[in-house]
Amino acid sequence: MGPLPRTLELFYDVLSPYSWLGFEVLCRYKNIWNINLQLRPSLIAGIMKDSGSLSAMRFLTAVSMEHPEMLEKVSRELWMRVWSRDEDISEPQSILAAAEKAGMSTEQARGLLEKISTPNVKNKLKETTEAACKYGAFGLPITVAHLDGQTHMLFGSDRMELLAHLLGEKWMGPVPPAINARL
Amino acid sequence: MGPLPRTLELFYDVLSPYSWLGFEVLCRYKNIWNINLQLRPSLIAGIMKDSGSLSAMRFLTAVSMEHPEMLEKVSRELWMRVWSRDEDISEPQSILAAAEKAGMSTEQARGLLEKISTPNVKNKLKETTEAACKYGAFGLPITVAHLDGQTHMLFGSDRMELLAHLLGEKWMGPVPPAINARL
Repeated sequence: MGPLPRTLELFYDVLSPYSWLGFEVLCRYKNIWNINLQLRPSLIAGIMKDSGSLSAMRFLTAVSMEHPEMLEKVSRELWMRVWSRDEDISEPQSILAAAEKAGMSTEQARGLLEKISTPNVKNKLKETTEAACKYGAFGLPITVAHLDGQTHMLFGSDRMELLAHLLGEKWMGPVPPAINARL
Repeated sequence: MGPLPRTLELFYDVLSPYSWLGFEVLCRYKNIWNINLQLRPSLIAGIMKDSGSLSAMRFLTAVSMEHPEMLEKVSRELWMRVWSRDEDISEPQSILAAAEKAGMSTEQARGLLEKISTPNVKNKLKETTEAACKYGAFGLPITVAHLDGQTHMLFGSDRMELLAHLLGEKWMGPVPPAINARL
């Protein structure tokens, strides 16, 4: 008799393509690794429901309405917190820290933060989210290309070749050689 | 003057790491490709809310309760529909088709489908989803390894090397050479 199998639980939703990848790999390995694989069907909507980005996305919505030129930088600083340094993005001070790192003054950032509970900002975020759903989004990101009076929706971040093709442009990998902006 | 820029809308949530990848690539290309990049902050929770896997996941929950030996096959057939053949998984007939393809009799599948609106099945799916949240899930899949009285939560499907390391096993890539199950 070999050692007792170790228990692995796999929580998944069939709507999640990465769940499928994990599922197939673990199904292939369960005998090789001698694991007791417990499949746990779960609801991704239930998991994302309280996922904690509401304030951050309302803040970005306020930025897009009042200081659109700052939106790229503030977005990046929030990603740096949550996905690079594993820091919180749900608390007011976390959001203020990201905004200041992006170059906003404390005063400016505080002013925007006060606006995230206004109907204006709340409704704008709802409208944008509904717009994404209308384009057929079932997850994020989606990119919507408006070309020759038509719209093309691309899901995810791994269809850049297709986007380049639609645009009639060249895909040069995720880090294109630095060239000057066209005049 | 060059041609007019084409408009691309990027819908994103900072909670989504793939949104970050798409965002950075498009920010790098916006001048190279002469695109008018519109950043559209959205709420992933709002997009996943009506994402359409509720019936399918309740059905899998019923399968796990009554025919656990069928759970792997039925899960796979649902993924085949939604992620391989781009077919519906929200309608009753879609779920029945997946179950039958997995080897269930029509009668068996119909019996389970009738149970997806019972409190038993609904509560079980809620409990499993809450269990995933308690382990710290902020998306799916997660794998929870129970080893030596400790639990280790791994998010996503791309940390198999780490899982192998925790188990003291060898990672041989996503398609391991076929070897016999240990006796």
